[in-house]
Amino acid sequence: MNILLTNDDGIQAPGLRALDKALRDAGHTVQVVAPVSEQSAVGHAVTMAMPLKVKQFRENGFCGIGVNGTPVDCVKLALAQLLEQAPDLVVSGINSGCNVGVDIIYSGTVSAATEGALMGLPALAVSLDDWNFTDASEQAAWTAEFVGRMAWGQLPAQSVLNLNFPNLPLGEAKPLTVCRQTTAAYRDWYVARKDPRGRDYYWLEGEIPREKVSPDTDRALLWDGHITLTPLRFNFTDSEMLVRLRALALR
Amino acid sequence: MNILLTNDDGIQAPGLRALDKALRDAGHTVQVVAPVSEQSAVGHAVTMAMPLKVKQFRENGFCGIGVNGTPVDCVKLALAQLLEQAPDLVVSGINSGCNVGVDIIYSGTVSAATEGALMGLPALAVSLDDWNFTDASEQAAWTAEFVGRMAWGQLPAQSVLNLNFPNLPLGEAKPLTVCRQTTAAYRDWYVARKDPRGRDYYWLEGEIPREKVSPDTDRALLWDGHITLTPLRFNFTDSEMLVRLRALALR
Repeated sequence: MNILLTNDDGIQAPGLRALDKALRDAGHTVQVVAPVSEQSAVGHAVTMAMPLKVKQFRENGFCGIGVNGTPVDCVKLALAQLLEQAPDLVVSGINSGCNVGVDIIYSGTVSAATEGALMGLPALAVSLDDWNFTDASEQAAWTAEFVGRMAWGQLPAQSVLNLNFPNLPLGEAKPLTVCRQTTAAYRDWYVARKDPRGRDYYWLEGEIPREKVSPDTDRALLWDGHITLTPLRFNFTDSEMLVRLRALALR
Repeated sequence: MNILLTNDDGIQAPGLRALDKALRDAGHTVQVVAPVSEQSAVGHAVTMAMPLKVKQFRENGFCGIGVNGTPVDCVKLALAQLLEQAPDLVVSGINSGCNVGVDIIYSGTVSAATEGALMGLPALAVSLDDWNFTDASEQAAWTAEFVGRMAWGQLPAQSVLNLNFPNLPLGEAKPLTVCRQTTAAYRDWYVARKDPRGRDYYWLEGEIPREKVSPDTDRALLWDGHITLTPLRFNFTDSEMLVRLRALALR
Protein backbone atom coordinates (compact mmCIF):
# COMPACT_ATOMS: atom_id res chain seq x y z
CA MET A 1 0.00 0.00 0.00
CA ASN A 2 0.93 3.64 -0.45
CA ILE A 3 0.84 5.10 3.08
CA LEU A 4 0.92 8.66 4.40
CA LEU A 5 2.58 8.47 7.83
CA THR A 6 2.35 11.26 10.40
CA ASN A 7 2.19 11.72 14.17
CA ASP A 8 1.95 14.37 16.88
CA ASP A 9 5.21 13.73 18.73
CA GLY A 10 7.23 15.18 15.85
CA ILE A 11 9.17 13.84 12.88
CA GLN A 12 12.13 12.80 15.02
CA ALA A 13 10.08 10.76 17.54
CA PRO A 14 11.05 7.09 17.96
CA GLY A 15 7.47 5.87 17.48
CA LEU A 16 7.22 7.38 14.00
CA ARG A 17 10.68 6.23 13.03
CA ALA A 18 9.96 2.65 14.15
CA LEU A 19 6.66 2.55 12.26
CA ASP A 20 8.23 4.02 9.11
CA LYS A 21 10.87 1.29 9.12
CA ALA A 22 8.42 -1.54 9.88
CA LEU A 23 5.98 -0.46 7.16
CA ARG A 24 8.80 -0.22 4.60
CA ASP A 25 10.22 -3.58 5.71
CA ALA A 26 6.76 -5.05 5.10
CA GLY A 27 6.88 -3.82 1.50
CA HIS A 28 4.69 -0.71 1.75
CA THR A 29 5.51 2.65 0.21
CA VAL A 30 5.69 5.23 3.01
CA GLN A 31 5.58 9.00 2.67
CA VAL A 32 6.24 10.82 5.95
CA VAL A 33 4.80 14.31 6.49
CA ALA A 34 4.95 15.14 10.19
CA PRO A 35 5.28 18.11 12.56
CA VAL A 36 8.79 19.48 13.13
CA SER A 37 8.06 19.90 16.86
CA GLU A 38 5.98 18.02 19.40
CA GLN A 39 2.25 18.74 19.06
CA SER A 40 0.67 16.63 21.78
CA ALA A 41 -2.89 17.48 22.83
CA VAL A 42 -3.40 19.95 20.00
CA GLY A 43 -6.59 18.14 19.05
CA HIS A 44 -7.88 18.99 15.60
CA ALA A 45 -6.10 22.35 15.49
CA VAL A 46 -5.48 23.84 12.05
CA THR A 47 -3.06 26.66 11.29
CA MET A 48 -4.90 29.39 9.40
CA ALA A 49 -3.45 32.65 10.74
CA MET A 50 0.13 31.70 9.84
CA PRO A 51 1.74 30.17 6.76
CA LEU A 52 3.22 26.67 6.86
CA LYS A 53 6.84 25.97 6.00
CA VAL A 54 8.32 22.60 5.16
CA LYS A 55 11.76 21.05 5.60
CA GLN A 56 13.24 17.85 4.18
CA PHE A 57 14.62 15.31 6.66
CA ARG A 58 17.08 12.76 5.22
CA GLU A 59 19.23 10.69 7.56
CA ASN A 60 20.22 7.03 8.03
CA GLY A 61 17.79 5.75 5.42
CA PHE A 62 14.93 7.93 6.73
CA CYS A 63 13.27 10.36 4.36
CA GLY A 64 10.40 12.65 5.30
CA ILE A 65 8.97 16.16 5.23
CA GLY A 66 8.71 18.22 8.41
CA VAL A 67 5.99 20.90 8.70
CA ASN A 68 5.95 23.75 11.25
CA GLY A 69 2.33 22.99 12.06
CA THR A 70 -0.08 20.59 13.69
CA PRO A 71 -0.78 16.96 12.78
CA VAL A 72 -3.94 18.04 10.94
CA ASP A 73 -1.93 20.65 9.03
CA CYS A 74 0.43 17.86 7.94
CA VAL A 75 -2.37 15.72 6.54
CA LYS A 76 -4.10 18.65 4.83
CA LEU A 77 -0.88 19.96 3.29
CA ALA A 78 0.27 16.48 2.24
CA LEU A 79 -3.00 15.64 0.50
CA ALA A 80 -3.65 19.06 -1.05
CA GLN A 81 -0.12 20.06 -2.02
CA LEU A 82 2.89 17.89 -1.21
CA LEU A 83 2.08 14.36 -2.42
CA GLU A 84 2.01 13.67 -6.13
CA GLN A 85 -0.16 10.59 -5.71
CA ALA A 86 -3.00 10.21 -3.19
CA PRO A 87 -2.15 7.55 -0.58
CA ASP A 88 -4.26 4.44 0.04
CA LEU A 89 -4.12 4.85 3.82
CA VAL A 90 -3.26 7.45 6.47
CA VAL A 91 -1.40 6.14 9.53
CA SER A 92 -0.65 8.30 12.60
CA GLY A 93 1.77 7.19 15.32
CA ILE A 94 3.13 5.37 17.16
CA ASN A 95 2.23 7.88 19.86
CA SER A 96 3.96 8.09 23.23
CA GLY A 97 0.98 7.57 25.54
CA CYS A 98 -2.32 5.89 24.85
CA ASN A 99 -5.29 7.57 23.18
CA VAL A 100 -8.44 6.10 24.66
CA GLY A 101 -11.85 7.40 25.75
CA VAL A 102 -12.00 11.18 25.75
CA ASP A 103 -8.29 11.36 24.82
CA ILE A 104 -9.66 10.89 21.31
CA ILE A 105 -10.96 14.46 21.32
CA TYR A 106 -7.73 15.97 22.69
CA SER A 107 -5.32 13.86 20.69
CA GLY A 108 -3.28 15.16 17.79
CA THR A 109 -2.50 11.57 16.83
CA VAL A 110 -6.14 10.63 16.39
CA SER A 111 -7.00 13.99 14.81
CA ALA A 112 -4.45 13.42 12.05
CA ALA A 113 -6.10 10.09 11.27
CA THR A 114 -9.51 11.76 11.45
CA GLU A 115 -8.46 14.38 8.93
CA GLY A 116 -7.44 11.59 6.55
CA ALA A 117 -10.83 9.95 7.06
CA LEU A 118 -12.67 13.24 6.45
CA MET A 119 -10.74 13.48 3.18
CA GLY A 120 -12.07 10.07 2.17
CA LEU A 121 -9.15 7.79 3.07
CA PRO A 122 -9.06 4.84 5.44
CA ALA A 123 -7.11 5.84 8.53
CA LEU A 124 -5.36 4.26 11.49
CA ALA A 125 -4.18 5.89 14.73
CA VAL A 126 -1.59 3.93 16.74
CA SER A 127 -0.57 4.62 20.35
CA LEU A 128 1.43 2.89 23.09
CA ASP A 129 0.37 3.26 26.73
CA ASP A 130 3.82 4.45 27.81
CA TRP A 131 4.80 8.14 27.91
CA ASN A 132 8.51 7.46 27.78
CA PHE A 133 9.20 4.55 25.45
CA THR A 134 12.36 4.56 23.37
CA ASP A 135 11.85 1.31 21.46
CA ALA A 136 8.52 0.50 19.80
CA SER A 137 9.95 -1.81 17.15
CA GLU A 138 7.85 -4.80 18.23
CA GLN A 139 4.63 -2.79 18.21
CA ALA A 140 5.63 -1.26 14.87
CA ALA A 141 6.15 -4.68 13.30
CA TRP A 142 2.79 -5.86 14.69
CA THR A 143 1.12 -2.74 13.22
CA ALA A 144 2.74 -3.26 9.81
CA GLU A 145 1.44 -6.81 9.75
CA PHE A 146 -2.03 -5.61 10.81
CA VAL A 147 -2.02 -2.98 8.05
CA GLY A 148 -1.30 -5.72 5.52
CA ARG A 149 -4.11 -8.02 6.61
CA MET A 150 -6.87 -5.50 7.42
CA ALA A 151 -9.68 -5.28 4.85
CA TRP A 152 -9.49 -1.48 4.54
CA GLY A 153 -11.94 -1.39 1.65
CA GLN A 154 -14.68 -2.80 3.87
CA LEU A 155 -14.64 0.08 6.35
CA PRO A 156 -17.40 2.68 6.04
CA ALA A 157 -16.49 6.13 4.71
CA GLN A 158 -15.04 8.68 7.17
CA SER A 159 -14.13 6.09 9.78
CA VAL A 160 -10.92 5.75 11.78
CA LEU A 161 -9.46 2.67 13.46
CA ASN A 162 -7.89 3.51 16.82
CA LEU A 163 -5.24 0.98 17.88
CA ASN A 164 -3.61 1.01 21.34
CA PHE A 165 -0.85 -1.17 22.76
CA PRO A 166 -0.58 -1.85 26.50
CA ASN A 167 2.44 -0.84 28.58
CA LEU A 168 4.02 -4.30 28.36
CA PRO A 169 6.58 -6.06 26.18
CA LEU A 170 4.56 -7.22 23.17
CA GLY A 171 5.15 -10.90 24.07
CA GLU A 172 3.29 -10.38 27.34
CA ALA A 173 0.32 -8.50 25.82
CA LYS A 174 -3.09 -10.15 25.66
CA PRO A 175 -4.77 -10.56 22.24
CA LEU A 176 -6.31 -7.78 20.18
CA THR A 177 -9.79 -6.91 21.45
CA VAL A 178 -12.27 -4.86 19.43
CA CYS A 179 -14.01 -2.64 21.98
CA ARG A 180 -15.83 0.64 22.54
CA GLN A 181 -14.22 3.77 23.99
CA THR A 182 -14.76 4.66 27.61
CA THR A 183 -16.96 7.73 28.05
CA ALA A 184 -15.48 8.60 31.46
CA ALA A 185 -14.20 12.18 31.56
CA TYR A 186 -10.89 13.22 33.05
CA ARG A 187 -10.77 14.47 36.60
CA ASP A 188 -8.66 17.61 36.17
CA TRP A 189 -6.75 19.64 38.65
CA TYR A 190 -4.18 22.40 38.35
CA VAL A 191 -0.96 22.76 40.26
CA ALA A 192 -0.97 26.45 41.28
CA ARG A 193 2.48 28.02 41.75
CA LYS A 194 4.11 31.43 41.71
CA ASP A 195 6.68 32.37 39.07
CA PRO A 196 9.99 34.07 40.02
CA ARG A 197 8.22 37.44 39.78
CA GLY A 198 5.43 36.40 42.17
CA ARG A 199 2.69 35.89 39.62
CA ASP A 200 0.33 32.91 39.76
CA TYR A 201 0.53 30.18 37.17
CA TYR A 202 -1.37 26.94 36.72
CA TRP A 203 -0.20 23.62 35.34
CA LEU A 204 -2.69 20.98 34.25
CA GLU A 205 -2.79 17.52 35.75
CA GLY A 206 -5.53 14.94 35.48
CA GLU A 207 -6.50 11.32 35.34
CA ILE A 208 -9.35 9.14 34.17
CA PRO A 209 -10.94 7.91 37.43
CA ARG A 210 -10.69 4.11 37.54
CA GLU A 211 -14.06 3.69 39.21
CA LYS A 212 -15.82 5.37 36.27
CA VAL A 213 -14.32 3.09 33.60
CA SER A 214 -16.45 0.15 32.38
CA PRO A 215 -14.48 -3.11 32.05
CA ASP A 216 -15.56 -3.58 28.40
CA THR A 217 -13.97 -0.31 27.24
CA ASP A 218 -10.60 0.58 25.71
CA ARG A 219 -9.14 2.15 28.87
CA ALA A 220 -9.96 -0.86 31.06
CA LEU A 221 -8.86 -3.48 28.53
CA LEU A 222 -5.57 -1.65 28.01
CA TRP A 223 -4.94 -1.60 31.77
CA ASP A 224 -5.70 -5.33 31.67
CA GLY A 225 -2.93 -5.88 29.08
CA HIS A 226 -4.94 -6.20 25.86
CA ILE A 227 -4.14 -4.67 22.51
CA THR A 228 -7.32 -2.67 21.76
CA LEU A 229 -8.97 -1.59 18.54
CA THR A 230 -11.94 0.80 18.36
CA PRO A 231 -13.72 1.97 15.22
CA LEU A 232 -14.49 5.70 15.38
CA ARG A 233 -16.78 7.87 13.35
CA PHE A 234 -17.22 11.61 13.42
CA ASN A 235 -20.82 12.44 12.80
CA PHE A 236 -21.69 14.47 15.87
CA THR A 237 -25.40 15.01 15.28
CA ASP A 238 -27.43 13.43 18.06
CA SER A 239 -30.25 12.04 15.90
CA GLU A 240 -32.41 10.97 18.82
CA MET A 241 -32.13 14.36 20.49
CA LEU A 242 -32.84 16.06 17.18
CA VAL A 243 -36.43 14.86 17.33
CA ARG A 244 -36.95 15.81 20.97
CA LEU A 245 -35.26 19.17 20.51
CA ARG A 246 -37.78 20.19 17.88
CA ALA A 247 -40.38 20.18 20.64
CA LEU A 248 -38.12 21.73 23.29
CA ALA A 249 -36.51 24.55 21.34
CA LEU A 250 -39.22 25.73 19.01
CA ARG A 251 -42.31 27.57 20.02
CA MET B 1 -28.76 30.98 35.67
CA ASN B 2 -25.09 31.04 36.59
CA ILE B 3 -23.25 31.01 33.26
CA LEU B 4 -19.60 30.43 32.35
CA LEU B 5 -19.00 32.43 29.16
CA THR B 6 -16.00 31.86 26.89
CA ASN B 7 -15.08 32.00 23.20
CA ASP B 8 -12.21 31.47 20.78
CA ASP B 9 -11.92 34.97 19.32
CA GLY B 10 -10.48 36.28 22.58
CA ILE B 11 -11.77 38.16 25.61
CA GLN B 12 -11.89 41.49 23.77
CA ALA B 13 -13.96 40.21 20.83
CA PRO B 14 -17.25 42.00 20.13
CA GLY B 15 -19.23 38.74 20.01
CA LEU B 16 -18.28 37.81 23.57
CA ARG B 17 -18.81 41.33 24.85
CA ALA B 18 -22.28 41.52 23.29
CA LEU B 19 -23.30 38.15 24.69
CA ASP B 20 -21.98 39.02 28.16
CA LYS B 21 -24.07 42.19 28.20
CA ALA B 22 -27.21 40.51 26.85
CA LEU B 23 -27.04 37.63 29.33
CA ARG B 24 -26.56 40.05 32.25
CA ASP B 25 -29.38 42.27 30.96
CA ALA B 26 -31.59 39.18 30.98
CA GLY B 27 -30.84 38.65 34.66
CA HIS B 28 -28.26 35.87 34.46
CA THR B 29 -25.03 35.78 36.45
CA VAL B 30 -22.14 35.68 33.98
CA GLN B 31 -18.54 34.69 34.71
CA VAL B 32 -16.22 35.27 31.74
CA VAL B 33 -13.05 33.17 31.39
CA ALA B 34 -11.73 33.51 27.84
CA PRO B 35 -8.47 33.42 25.86
CA VAL B 36 -6.35 36.58 25.91
CA SER B 37 -5.60 36.17 22.20
CA GLU B 38 -7.51 34.84 19.21
CA GLN B 39 -7.62 31.02 19.14
CA SER B 40 -9.65 30.25 16.03
CA ALA B 41 -9.41 26.71 14.62
CA VAL B 42 -7.49 25.38 17.60
CA GLY B 43 -10.02 22.58 17.95
CA HIS B 44 -9.93 20.77 21.26
CA ALA B 45 -6.31 21.74 21.95
CA VAL B 46 -5.20 21.67 25.59
CA THR B 47 -2.05 23.32 26.95
CA MET B 48 -0.06 20.73 28.85
CA ALA B 49 3.58 21.56 28.08
CA MET B 50 3.29 25.15 29.32
CA PRO B 51 1.74 26.73 32.40
CA LEU B 52 -1.33 28.95 32.14
CA LYS B 53 -1.39 32.52 33.38
CA VAL B 54 -4.46 34.61 34.04
CA LYS B 55 -5.20 38.33 33.87
CA GLN B 56 -8.19 40.34 35.14
CA PHE B 57 -10.04 42.49 32.61
CA ARG B 58 -12.19 45.29 34.07
CA GLU B 59 -13.44 48.07 31.83
CA ASN B 60 -16.72 49.89 31.11
CA GLY B 61 -18.79 47.52 33.21
CA PHE B 62 -17.12 44.44 31.78
CA CYS B 63 -15.40 42.03 34.17
CA GLY B 64 -13.66 38.82 33.12
CA ILE B 65 -10.56 36.67 33.37
CA GLY B 66 -8.20 36.29 30.41
CA VAL B 67 -6.12 33.10 30.06
CA ASN B 68 -3.03 32.70 27.84
CA GLY B 69 -4.40 29.44 26.50
CA THR B 70 -7.01 27.79 24.32
CA PRO B 71 -10.80 27.82 24.75
CA VAL B 72 -10.66 24.33 26.26
CA ASP B 73 -7.95 25.49 28.69
CA CYS B 74 -10.30 28.30 29.77
CA VAL B 75 -13.14 25.91 30.55
CA LYS B 76 -10.90 23.40 32.33
CA LEU B 77 -9.16 26.07 34.40
CA ALA B 78 -12.43 27.85 35.23
CA LEU B 79 -14.15 24.69 36.42
CA ALA B 80 -11.18 23.15 38.24
CA GLN B 81 -9.62 26.24 39.75
CA LEU B 82 -10.98 29.72 39.11
CA LEU B 83 -14.72 29.60 39.82
CA GLU B 84 -15.88 29.31 43.39
CA GLN B 85 -19.27 27.92 42.38
CA ALA B 86 -19.90 25.50 39.48
CA PRO B 87 -21.96 27.16 36.75
CA ASP B 88 -25.32 25.87 35.53
CA LEU B 89 -24.41 26.31 31.86
CA VAL B 90 -21.36 26.85 29.63
CA VAL B 91 -21.85 29.27 26.72
CA SER B 92 -19.20 29.84 24.03
CA GLY B 93 -19.39 32.70 21.54
CA ILE B 94 -20.67 34.62 19.71
CA ASN B 95 -18.04 33.47 17.20
CA SER B 96 -17.05 35.47 14.13
CA GLY B 97 -17.86 32.95 11.42
CA CYS B 98 -20.27 30.03 11.48
CA ASN B 99 -19.47 26.60 12.90
CA VAL B 100 -21.36 24.03 10.88
CA GLY B 101 -20.66 20.56 9.53
CA VAL B 102 -17.02 19.57 9.90
CA ASP B 103 -16.20 23.04 11.31
CA ILE B 104 -17.39 21.45 14.53
CA ILE B 105 -14.22 19.40 14.73
CA TYR B 106 -11.89 22.35 13.96
CA SER B 107 -13.71 24.93 16.03
CA GLY B 108 -12.39 26.30 19.29
CA THR B 109 -15.84 27.76 19.96
CA VAL B 110 -17.57 24.39 19.82
CA SER B 111 -14.70 22.65 21.63
CA ALA B 112 -15.08 24.97 24.62
CA ALA B 113 -18.75 24.03 24.83
CA THR B 114 -17.83 20.37 24.37
CA GLU B 115 -15.39 20.54 27.27
CA GLY B 116 -18.19 21.90 29.46
CA ALA B 117 -20.42 19.03 28.34
CA LEU B 118 -17.70 16.45 29.05
CA MET B 119 -17.48 17.93 32.55
CA GLY B 120 -21.19 17.29 33.01
CA LEU B 121 -22.68 20.72 32.26
CA PRO B 122 -25.21 21.71 29.63
CA ALA B 123 -23.44 23.68 26.93
CA LEU B 124 -24.23 26.04 24.07
CA ALA B 125 -21.98 27.16 21.21
CA VAL B 126 -23.08 30.32 19.35
CA SER B 127 -21.74 31.53 16.01
CA LEU B 128 -22.64 34.13 13.39
CA ASP B 129 -22.02 33.42 9.70
CA ASP B 130 -20.02 36.62 9.20
CA TRP B 131 -16.23 36.77 9.65
CA ASN B 132 -16.16 40.52 10.18
CA PHE B 133 -19.13 41.56 12.26
CA THR B 134 -18.74 44.41 14.72
CA ASP B 135 -22.25 44.43 16.18
CA ALA B 136 -23.93 41.20 17.30
CA SER B 137 -26.22 42.81 19.85
CA GLU B 138 -29.42 41.55 18.20
CA GLN B 139 -28.13 37.99 18.01
CA ALA B 140 -26.87 38.26 21.61
CA ALA B 141 -30.29 39.35 22.86
CA TRP B 142 -31.94 36.50 20.92
CA THR B 143 -29.46 34.05 22.48
CA ALA B 144 -30.07 35.36 25.99
CA GLU B 145 -33.80 34.91 25.51
CA PHE B 146 -33.20 31.37 24.14
CA VAL B 147 -30.99 30.51 27.15
CA GLY B 148 -33.84 31.55 29.43
CA ARG B 149 -36.52 29.45 27.77
CA MET B 150 -34.52 26.31 26.87
CA ALA B 151 -35.24 23.26 29.07
CA TRP B 152 -31.55 22.59 29.79
CA GLY B 153 -32.34 19.88 32.33
CA GLN B 154 -33.98 17.78 29.64
CA LEU B 155 -30.86 17.44 27.50
CA PRO B 156 -28.96 14.15 27.71
CA ALA B 157 -25.59 14.14 29.49
CA GLN B 158 -22.50 15.24 27.55
CA SER B 159 -24.47 16.97 24.81
CA VAL B 160 -23.91 20.35 23.23
CA LEU B 161 -26.35 22.62 21.43
CA ASN B 162 -24.78 24.30 18.41
CA LEU B 163 -26.53 27.55 17.45
CA ASN B 164 -25.73 29.47 14.26
CA PHE B 165 -27.08 32.79 12.99
CA PRO B 166 -27.21 33.59 9.26
CA ASN B 167 -25.33 36.50 7.73
CA LEU B 168 -28.38 38.79 7.78
CA PRO B 169 -29.84 41.42 10.07
CA LEU B 170 -31.80 39.40 12.63
CA GLY B 171 -35.11 40.85 11.48
CA GLU B 172 -34.57 39.30 8.04
CA ALA B 173 -33.56 35.86 9.35
CA LYS B 174 -35.88 32.89 8.90
CA PRO B 175 -37.07 31.01 12.00
CA LEU B 176 -34.96 28.67 14.13
CA THR B 177 -34.66 25.24 12.52
CA VAL B 178 -33.45 22.18 14.40
CA CYS B 179 -31.32 20.26 11.90
CA ARG B 180 -28.44 17.84 11.45
CA GLN B 181 -24.89 18.87 10.56
CA THR B 182 -23.67 18.52 7.00
CA THR B 183 -21.08 15.76 6.61
CA ALA B 184 -19.51 17.36 3.54
CA ALA B 185 -15.75 17.82 3.98
CA TYR B 186 -13.87 20.97 3.05
CA ARG B 187 -12.18 21.20 -0.31
CA ASP B 188 -8.75 22.50 0.73
CA TRP B 189 -6.05 24.17 -1.24
CA TYR B 190 -2.90 26.02 -0.34
CA VAL B 191 -1.63 29.28 -1.76
CA ALA B 192 2.07 28.56 -2.36
CA ARG B 193 4.35 31.60 -2.21
CA LYS B 194 7.99 32.43 -1.58
CA ASP B 195 9.08 34.43 1.45
CA PRO B 196 11.54 37.38 1.14
CA ARG B 197 14.39 34.89 1.48
CA GLY B 198 13.15 32.68 -1.35
CA ARG B 199 11.76 29.86 0.74
CA ASP B 200 8.40 28.24 -0.02
CA TYR B 201 5.47 28.76 2.27
CA TYR B 202 1.87 27.58 2.12
CA TRP B 203 -1.29 29.29 3.29
CA LEU B 204 -4.50 27.34 3.76
CA GLU B 205 -7.68 28.17 1.90
CA GLY B 206 -10.78 26.06 1.55
CA GLU B 207 -14.51 25.89 1.17
CA ILE B 208 -17.36 23.48 1.72
CA PRO B 209 -18.46 22.56 -1.84
CA ARG B 210 -22.07 23.65 -2.31
CA GLU B 211 -22.96 20.64 -4.45
CA LYS B 212 -22.08 18.26 -1.60
CA VAL B 213 -24.33 19.93 1.00
CA SER B 214 -27.76 18.38 1.60
CA PRO B 215 -30.57 20.96 1.86
CA ASP B 216 -31.72 19.64 5.26
CA THR B 217 -28.37 20.35 6.96
CA ASP B 218 -27.01 23.27 9.00
CA ARG B 219 -24.78 24.66 6.22
CA ALA B 220 -27.58 24.75 3.65
CA LEU B 221 -30.23 26.13 6.02
CA LEU B 222 -27.84 28.87 7.15
CA TRP B 223 -27.17 29.87 3.54
CA ASP B 224 -30.95 29.94 3.14
CA GLY B 225 -31.25 32.47 5.99
CA HIS B 226 -32.40 30.26 8.87
CA ILE B 227 -31.18 30.34 12.43
CA THR B 228 -30.00 26.74 12.97
CA LEU B 229 -29.71 24.56 16.05
CA THR B 230 -28.03 21.14 16.09
CA PRO B 231 -27.69 18.81 19.08
CA LEU B 232 -24.20 17.28 19.21
CA ARG B 233 -22.85 14.36 21.16
CA PHE B 234 -19.29 13.11 21.42
CA ASN B 235 -19.34 9.35 21.64
CA PHE B 236 -17.13 8.40 18.71
CA THR B 237 -17.45 4.62 18.87
CA ASP B 238 -19.04 3.29 15.70
CA SER B 239 -21.24 0.64 17.31
CA GLU B 240 -22.34 -0.92 14.04
CA MET B 241 -18.78 -1.21 12.77
CA LEU B 242 -17.70 -2.64 16.12
CA VAL B 243 -19.60 -5.84 15.37
CA ARG B 244 -18.31 -6.15 11.81
CA LEU B 245 -14.76 -5.32 12.84
CA ARG B 246 -14.64 -8.25 15.21
CA ALA B 247 -14.83 -10.48 12.14
CA LEU B 248 -12.53 -8.36 9.99
CA ALA B 249 -9.72 -7.60 12.41
CA LEU B 250 -9.41 -10.75 14.48
CA ARG B 251 -8.17 -14.06 13.25
